[in-house]
Amino acid sequence: MKSSTDPVQNLAKLIACPSVTPVEGGALTALQAMLSPLGFSVERPVFSEDGTSDVENLYARRSGNGPHLMFAGHTDVVPVGDEAAWTYPPFSAAIHNGEMYGRGAVDMKGGIACFAAAVARYLDKNGELKGSISFLITGDEEGPSINGTGKLLEWAKAKGESWDAAIVGEPTNPDKLGDMIKIGRRGSLSGTIVVNGVQGHAAYPHLADNPVRGLVTLVDSLLYPVFDEGTKDFQASNLEITTIDVGNTAVNVLPAKATAIFNIRYNDTWTDETLMAEIHNRLDKASGRSKLRPGKKTPVNYELIWRHRPSHVFFTHDEKLIGTLTSSVEAVTGNRPQLSTSGGTSDARFIKDYCPVVEFGLVGKTMHMVDERVALADLETLTQIYERFIADFFA
Amino acid sequence: MKSSTDPVQNLAKLIACPSVTPVEGGALTALQAMLSPLGFSVERPVFSEDGTSDVENLYARRSGNGPHLMFAGHTDVVPVGDEAAWTYPPFSAAIHNGEMYGRGAVDMKGGIACFAAAVARYLDKNGELKGSISFLITGDEEGPSINGTGKLLEWAKAKGESWDAAIVGEPTNPDKLGDMIKIGRRGSLSGTIVVNGVQGHAAYPHLADNPVRGLVTLVDSLLYPVFDEGTKDFQASNLEITTIDVGNTAVNVLPAKATAIFNIRYNDTWTDETLMAEIHNRLDKASGRSKLRPGKKTPVNYELIWRHRPSHVFFTHDEKLIGTLTSSVEAVTGNRPQLSTSGGTSDARFIKDYCPVVEFGLVGKTMHMVDERVALADLETLTQIYERFIADFFA
Repeated sequence: MKSSTDPVQNLAKLIACPSVTPVEGGALTALQAMLSPLGFSVERPVFSEDGTSDVENLYARRSGNGPHLMFAGHTDVVPVGDEAAWTYPPFSAAIHNGEMYGRGAVDMKGGIACFAAAVARYLDKNGELKGSISFLITGDEEGPSINGTGKLLEWAKAKGESWDAAIVGEPTNPDKLGDMIKIGRRGSLSGTIVVNGVQGHAAYPHLADNPVRGLVTLVDSLLYPVFDEGTKDFQASNLEITTIDVGNTAVNVLPAKATAIFNIRYNDTWTDETLMAEIHNRLDKASGRSKLRPGKKTPVNYELIWRHRPSHVFFTHDEKLIGTLTSSVEAVTGNRPQLSTSGGTSDARFIKDYCPVVEFGLVGKTMHMVDERVALADLETLTQIYERFIADFFA
Repeated sequence: MKSSTDPVQNLAKLIACPSVTPVEGGALTALQAMLSPLGFSVERPVFSEDGTSDVENLYARRSGNGPHLMFAGHTDVVPVGDEAAWTYPPFSAAIHNGEMYGRGAVDMKGGIACFAAAVARYLDKNGELKGSISFLITGDEEGPSINGTGKLLEWAKAKGESWDAAIVGEPTNPDKLGDMIKIGRRGSLSGTIVVNGVQGHAAYPHLADNPVRGLVTLVDSLLYPVFDEGTKDFQASNLEITTIDVGNTAVNVLPAKATAIFNIRYNDTWTDETLMAEIHNRLDKASGRSKLRPGKKTPVNYELIWRHRPSHVFFTHDEKLIGTLTSSVEAVTGNRPQLSTSGGTSDARFIKDYCPVVEFGLVGKTMHMVDERVALADLETLTQIYERFIADFFA
């Protein structure tokens, strides 16, 4: 098998590059070396922003007469964690018992290796393709996601690019290949609530203003009632208080400030605008009806600071894209995959503004863990699924 | 004026001793030198306990035929804070504009200096006293209060001592001398609540168990409803959450543990036993009705750890003791003092198990502050009040 048609060889080359986010580590160069011989023209835009690291990205396009399919993903990986705990070094791509070990094996250098191999096989067999394929690959998915997919899409659009459909190669299968296609993801929004009070002695609370009292009331208003019961396509939105911190060590002193941080995973009941308005509304109402000390009439003095950018909810309605991918999975694996909107966020949230997008890749079980690894058989199966999908999509 | 009849000279000697808790610093030795010439037999028991510093205490008794009055207090002082910020060095006893500066000037070396002067004046005028007076003075009031007044009382009782009444010389007046006698104090009780959950990813809360959710519910149950509305003699009991701490820095991670600390100042509606039972009961009930995620049925997994020893509530019903002190204050100052049970705890909580006890001393405004100081005129007035009280008590 030629290097580019073999997902195992492709993946070994990618794993060997220590591309811990936001470092390129040679991974995009290795991918470029796979794609150029297949007729892709490759560009490597670098994006930067104050307060963030510069990030290298890759956009590779192979043009043809017909629709335009995007394959999207990332070559950056999460840190290796406790390197000594790995059975094989995390950038060695060691193969043992039919599995390849390495950081990024499933999340998601493996998906890229398979898609590149699938394109190579398709071209080997058919000589030409009735359409365009592009690889939109970032080095900023595991980091703050500021200099990555979002900017890469804007950059490509500004050059005149447009797409008919996209597939993201994230590891979407919980247990075995063929389990699950993601056709949507909940959004994610985080904020910090700071309540300012007045420090004082615990025996004289009327001379102080204990901010913990107000903060508990505000937090309550976000936890209850629940935001929704879920929709036809999505789990219920869910808000969690991820931390509350005061840092007061003296039990006879009332503190001056108390802080909470929350994160909400929200479904298509909401846009980030309507959700932010709902949260503001709950806090404003709660701040006026705090469990005030008798005689204490002032409302809770709080600030709400939104953290990062919200990750928008996305949901794909494109029956043709979903149907084509589903039947490809079923044809190769014999399993009809579940269509799911569960789990965390992905870069598909950026792509959905440009074209219909779905996600399908390897099995996620070992992602982000020590001894992240992939079955060689899964690499072969995923390559066959992707090849079948390409064939059907351009048919 | 002989040294021991002059409260200003007495106080200067005591302030010169840097007796920052738990260090004796020469303060008890200086007091012993004042009391021995007045006919007091002085003992200096040292108490110790694992995990605490050894503390020196003083018990001085002058015996006579009649009732036994205890004067109680402490020579230890709180740290000086920012020494550079003091107008005069904190152990210099410098006098400026009719005020003496120094750590302990009002809390409460000043009270001791005045009571010693009052006894000396009374004996100068009357030659003899129809009863017994003892000084019960600790060096552990500003510290953990473990090797101090409580043990000193047990020690004296074991020697056969008993008392008819006690006066504590803490600075009880908020603004001017004669404002306020304390005839009781609320109790104080503190506890730490630890909720143990299961760490996880914010997008998969059903695979985790966010302890903040449970903690907020438990804390709510302590804040509301209020414990009581106050009693005839006391303010309402009041619970404050003094801190909540989680320390989770990652907004997409749910933490494993969350901690809150509370302090309740409680009145004579409660004993520490009934109050601890009420708090346990509230938490046990709340832990079963947490605002659980849909499908999450396990109760909140929490521990409650009581902190330190509770400070018991005390209230003095002795009309003769209160009446004698009130009329002494009124006779000297022209003000009828308010009888109050407000504010923090004091060592009177230990004494109340042995005899009726009240508290009266200097003006507390500058206590624990930089530039703690006392008006020389107040030292003279308090000495006259104490002398009048001694005369009336033994009449």
